[in-house]
Amino acid sequence: MAVVEFELQAKCAETGARAGRLHTAHGTIETPVFMPVGTYGSVKALTPRDLEVDLNARIILANTYHLFLRPGHERIERLGGLHRFMAWPRAILTDSGGFQVFSLDTFRKVTDEGVLFRSHLNGDQHFFTPESTVDVQLALGSDINMVLDECLPYPTEHAAAEQSMRRTIRWARIGYQHYLRREKGLHCALFPIVQGSMYPDLRRACAHELLELDAPGYAIGGLSVGEPRELSQEMVALTAPLLPENRPRYVMGVGMPEELPQYVAKGVDMMDCVLPTRNARNGTLFTSEGRLVIKQARYMEDEGPLDPKCPCYACRTFSRAYLRHLFMAGEMLFSMLATMHNVQHYLDTMREMREAILFGRFPAYLRNSRTHLPAEAAAD
Amino acid sequence: MAVVEFELQAKCAETGARAGRLHTAHGTIETPVFMPVGTYGSVKALTPRDLEVDLNARIILANTYHLFLRPGHERIERLGGLHRFMAWPRAILTDSGGFQVFSLDTFRKVTDEGVLFRSHLNGDQHFFTPESTVDVQLALGSDINMVLDECLPYPTEHAAAEQSMRRTIRWARIGYQHYLRREKGLHCALFPIVQGSMYPDLRRACAHELLELDAPGYAIGGLSVGEPRELSQEMVALTAPLLPENRPRYVMGVGMPEELPQYVAKGVDMMDCVLPTRNARNGTLFTSEGRLVIKQARYMEDEGPLDPKCPCYACRTFSRAYLRHLFMAGEMLFSMLATMHNVQHYLDTMREMREAILFGRFPAYLRNSRTHLPAEAAAD
Repeated sequence: MAVVEFELQAKCAETGARAGRLHTAHGTIETPVFMPVGTYGSVKALTPRDLEVDLNARIILANTYHLFLRPGHERIERLGGLHRFMAWPRAILTDSGGFQVFSLDTFRKVTDEGVLFRSHLNGDQHFFTPESTVDVQLALGSDINMVLDECLPYPTEHAAAEQSMRRTIRWARIGYQHYLRREKGLHCALFPIVQGSMYPDLRRACAHELLELDAPGYAIGGLSVGEPRELSQEMVALTAPLLPENRPRYVMGVGMPEELPQYVAKGVDMMDCVLPTRNARNGTLFTSEGRLVIKQARYMEDEGPLDPKCPCYACRTFSRAYLRHLFMAGEMLFSMLATMHNVQHYLDTMREMREAILFGRFPAYLRNSRTHLPAEAAAD
Repeated sequence: MAVVEFELQAKCAETGARAGRLHTAHGTIETPVFMPVGTYGSVKALTPRDLEVDLNARIILANTYHLFLRPGHERIERLGGLHRFMAWPRAILTDSGGFQVFSLDTFRKVTDEGVLFRSHLNGDQHFFTPESTVDVQLALGSDINMVLDECLPYPTEHAAAEQSMRRTIRWARIGYQHYLRREKGLHCALFPIVQGSMYPDLRRACAHELLELDAPGYAIGGLSVGEPRELSQEMVALTAPLLPENRPRYVMGVGMPEELPQYVAKGVDMMDCVLPTRNARNGTLFTSEGRLVIKQARYMEDEGPLDPKCPCYACRTFSRAYLRHLFMAGEMLFSMLATMHNVQHYLDTMREMREAILFGRFPAYLRNSRTHLPAEAAAD
């Protein structure tokens, strides 16, 4: 039995939505699941205790590119691996670093062998290969590793997208063989990533070829790169059904709260995004009533909680007036409380959907979420 | 019975050290006590829950000057007072704003009536009087209020210091009468502040005249304004014994960890200082082994806790290597953990001293602290 194994528990009768359990060496994750992003081995403004005890997050994402540069994967390995280093006892997924290398503005050159880039910190030159990014992630000791993939900007011509997709497939094969030689699936999983820009034929071809790897999970990448949201959803809608039913499907880097049900309806089991944490620090809160921009004068003497329906520490304890004051005064406590709330909101949204799927109520949930939450909600 | 009342529990046989209990409407405070500083109604980088549950702080300090400017004392009063606003159920002491008005670089003019100053935020002109600062603090609803005092720079000529000390006494009388008219000591206390620069005769005269107010507690102010530390201690040593034995004595704005026992030995019951919180954010940690500057390369792969003797969440959970990584990466979590540790260190130091006084071991504690902790400790 593989160390990372997916158990499909329920399927929605009308949509593609699924509920399951993903078993890892660091605990079981109930899906669909949202993974808070902890770029440098810290989900910004939260302690691991907040994440575990308050928020009950079961899995977080860490960025291979960032940890490779600082403090370095070898150092983390010497210090006992990422779980121990950051004192996080539950599951960790690491990306391959590909997205950062291709999206941060660093000099780079892509060849069939890998990608040459410069550190955004000090300009040092580095080369990532399909093998080396597996090695970095094995050193980190994450539970779910990702293969190196080429991430294209939007839009990209069909011919270039096809060439890039072929390279991503080649890299996935090389990375997967390397991973099997080193780990044999005993400690962690490696997920391939379906690319193909916004071209259905390329997405289909890519998914088809990656299935040969028989990986314990598959990701859909290359989205959230500037394309219209309808297009991201279209790509997911056509790709997800091509992936094995008994394996988790992970859409990378999405999304807005109102998009989460859309992705789940298309059969997505895992998502990650910096939005809840980054927007929290910028003063944008996601609530059951829509988006709330805390600096607005209307909250100056508002004694109500951020979100009356939210059970998080921030909502149980503080008024909007106090949160606004903290934000205006530049107090760190604002970021701490706002992050806690936004992450709770994302995790609870996923937990509500999971329950709805298990009890056969997901179609109603989905209809309700469509009418209930416009992209720019009432409070905005 | 006054709402704020001090109960002297034990006195050291060899030094001036005392242990007591200070009863307030928001709980009893065991003394000697250190008060973490929460300038804007937030102890930076800590939640009220951290302060209450983890650190067991019994009283914090908030700055009248800052809250007066932002969000405004009237707004806080409309929102139910500072305790409710910041969700802090325990005691609060507010300063009078005098120290900030005199030390922040804002245009100002002092007259016998009060002090004219400009907001450091937007340049708006404001006038503090002995009555108005009492009114501001009553609006905030703090448990212990401070009278408006004139704070002098160091050094100041004797004649100017005497004139200023006379003004401080006059302000204390005016403020105290105003406070008695409005509150009658039923909800909070008002502490006068002994000034007199670094002149023993002025300190004595000031203390003597302020005793007439029969206040439930007295402060020693005008220290930590640039004078040598020996001089601050000398002023406290001569002033503290002049104050009533059955009232708490509060030295404002001190000190370094190694100075705390010195002040306690001189009969001081209460202290406050931004050092533990500010230095935490700058990467300087106070430990049982001395000061530790986390950015130093020696901690790069140090798996040990920040302070092996400290029971705080940061020391129980994380390595120096991880804390250094967070600091170098500019992660907010560093400030959160470092602040938690430094405040724990200060509070525990006070609690250890209290126990030593109660059990007759304070002289030994004091001797040990003198040899054990040089100002710049081993790790620095």
